[in-house]
Amino acid sequence: MNFNKKLEDIKTYEAGKPIELVVREFGIEPKDIVKLASNENPYGCSPKVQKAVVDIVKNMALYPDDSMIKLKTALAKRFEVLDENLIIGSGSDQVIEFLVHAKADKNSKILINSVTFAMYEIYAKHVGAEIIRTQSQEHNLEQFYELYKREKPEIIFLCTPNNPTGDAIDAKELFSFIERIDNNTLVVVDGAYMEYAIKKDEGKKVEPKDLIAKFNNVIYLGTFSKAYGLGGMRIGYGISNSIIIKELYKLRPPFNITTLSLEAASVAIDDSNFVDKSIELNFSEMKRYELFVQEKNIEMIDSYTNFVTLIFDKERVSSTVIAQQLLQQGMIVRDLSGYKMNAIRVTVGTTEQNSRFFELVSDLI
Amino acid sequence: MNFNKKLEDIKTYEAGKPIELVVREFGIEPKDIVKLASNENPYGCSPKVQKAVVDIVKNMALYPDDSMIKLKTALAKRFEVLDENLIIGSGSDQVIEFLVHAKADKNSKILINSVTFAMYEIYAKHVGAEIIRTQSQEHNLEQFYELYKREKPEIIFLCTPNNPTGDAIDAKELFSFIERIDNNTLVVVDGAYMEYAIKKDEGKKVEPKDLIAKFNNVIYLGTFSKAYGLGGMRIGYGISNSIIIKELYKLRPPFNITTLSLEAASVAIDDSNFVDKSIELNFSEMKRYELFVQEKNIEMIDSYTNFVTLIFDKERVSSTVIAQQLLQQGMIVRDLSGYKMNAIRVTVGTTEQNSRFFELVSDLI
Repeated sequence: MNFNKKLEDIKTYEAGKPIELVVREFGIEPKDIVKLASNENPYGCSPKVQKAVVDIVKNMALYPDDSMIKLKTALAKRFEVLDENLIIGSGSDQVIEFLVHAKADKNSKILINSVTFAMYEIYAKHVGAEIIRTQSQEHNLEQFYELYKREKPEIIFLCTPNNPTGDAIDAKELFSFIERIDNNTLVVVDGAYMEYAIKKDEGKKVEPKDLIAKFNNVIYLGTFSKAYGLGGMRIGYGISNSIIIKELYKLRPPFNITTLSLEAASVAIDDSNFVDKSIELNFSEMKRYELFVQEKNIEMIDSYTNFVTLIFDKERVSSTVIAQQLLQQGMIVRDLSGYKMNAIRVTVGTTEQNSRFFELVSDLI
Repeated sequence: MNFNKKLEDIKTYEAGKPIELVVREFGIEPKDIVKLASNENPYGCSPKVQKAVVDIVKNMALYPDDSMIKLKTALAKRFEVLDENLIIGSGSDQVIEFLVHAKADKNSKILINSVTFAMYEIYAKHVGAEIIRTQSQEHNLEQFYELYKREKPEIIFLCTPNNPTGDAIDAKELFSFIERIDNNTLVVVDGAYMEYAIKKDEGKKVEPKDLIAKFNNVIYLGTFSKAYGLGGMRIGYGISNSIIIKELYKLRPPFNITTLSLEAASVAIDDSNFVDKSIELNFSEMKRYELFVQEKNIEMIDSYTNFVTLIFDKERVSSTVIAQQLLQQGMIVRDLSGYKMNAIRVTVGTTEQNSRFFELVSDLI
């Protein structure tokens, strides 16, 4: 059977065996596995959200409210924007999918940071668009501008704070940069970890309402997967002017968010105590990483997120070996060798999880 | 800002206000609203499934197992196929999306029944493919074959039992039809309501494993939204040969099913008691519809599903008026005038819900 030619260039995103199963092959009990690989909230999700979901568990039989009125109202209030400025996706991933399909095709270029969220490239390949990367590991807006002038991309992705490096762009610099971009280039500001950045440094705070008030070519992305602790429920959102939102809506499949996910996100957004506490604990635990790397003489990128990126001296040790050895002890972290970095990305876990990490790494280096 | 030209031809699937809100504008209390419009399971979902989901509600914080090993193993066992024959989508809708994008483009034709599931056309428009329709309201495979010969479609959709008419194709005829179709045309057998059809007439039973053993150009679609009572959780599946599945997998976004949905479906598939009981009650209640329409002299299509389609005499009454008048009484059904039918589609509800329907309609005609 023949398929569309574009499929020839798409590699399957390999799901593979759950890594927990791999670890169990080393004879490790599930209860002893520590997963610090996906930047999930180590404090789980809000008890209020859990209760709300349990209360409506019978509603699993009912199709989701496809207008998403409850969640949209909550988001509109939280960000001081209108319903018409919002689109909700199955994770912010799905909003990325919509905007790539709306704006790019096989003749397009998409400009991204040298090291950044993998989904930008995956969706670019779906439409056959060419990916252009900066050189610098951290977002360097001058490099972005040079490449923008030369390559004329349809879309520019700015990920702040950036995944998997944890650095964040100064809000003022971000605004100045976008001012220099023409109206027909879509600038995506992916703020998946923004809740963390804001607590560490107000100067990193990008307000979606300010972005869309000032620019008509920008979309801000957010997610419930990180600070809100709902990674399993697949809820992200885009905030932009209503013209862009209307176009993206054309590509949205009906009922793209489950009934329980809508309820979970609607309740989560109002439990700021849970989010604040998670972030506070995150940064107090992150201090322990700072001390640890200082003591062990390991380089660590200053992080505005719920993860840290540890860069190892190539002469000393390979990140792939470290990750593999940790795996054999039941500790799952992300090796960044695929990004051409001799580094690992580690989610900042609970006190106990982090202690275990320090202990294991101390034995390895 | 410019967008891809293909978006010009796509109409937004209008979510609009939840119909419950519309009904409330008539001063009707939420508890008095009866929704027989979406073919949800009126008996909800299995208590075992509810318990399983409540038990893991904390896992909302954890990303879904993207290999879906538990659900795939359960489906493989249930249908006697291999993991590699399965793809799981956010509703069977999403599998339809994958296969349309994998196989069709703006030069393609897609052959469907004159009256059938709306999503086929919606996804066809996403890729700019042309929709070809048969004339007959029920699936007429001779008409399908004539149009296939003449139009050379890339994809043929057969919906059995068909939504929104409820009729089903004889399995033998379906197999004979597919035998006459060339290998490069993808035949989709959408069995969203198959669990109901099987209980009514074994002759309608299409076994996915037989389909894929015999043909390498067929995909079977199923869903957890109907008999399994999980419409809100967005889980459907495709069963096909591994070559087709591999191509579709290229288009699957990672983490397309939520953590709670995976658990719900995995448990639901083993609770055959709940499903059997739901279907049994469905057909005993459907008998009441048969008596009702006989008494009232209304035409009803013989249904193999959990809904009935009532066709009204044009001289006597308009289906739009009936649906509107029911709405004002808090009863939500689906008007089929958009399908050029003077008919309404009514989900077979609980005894109480159906009695209410009979009572209201009796007053209206």
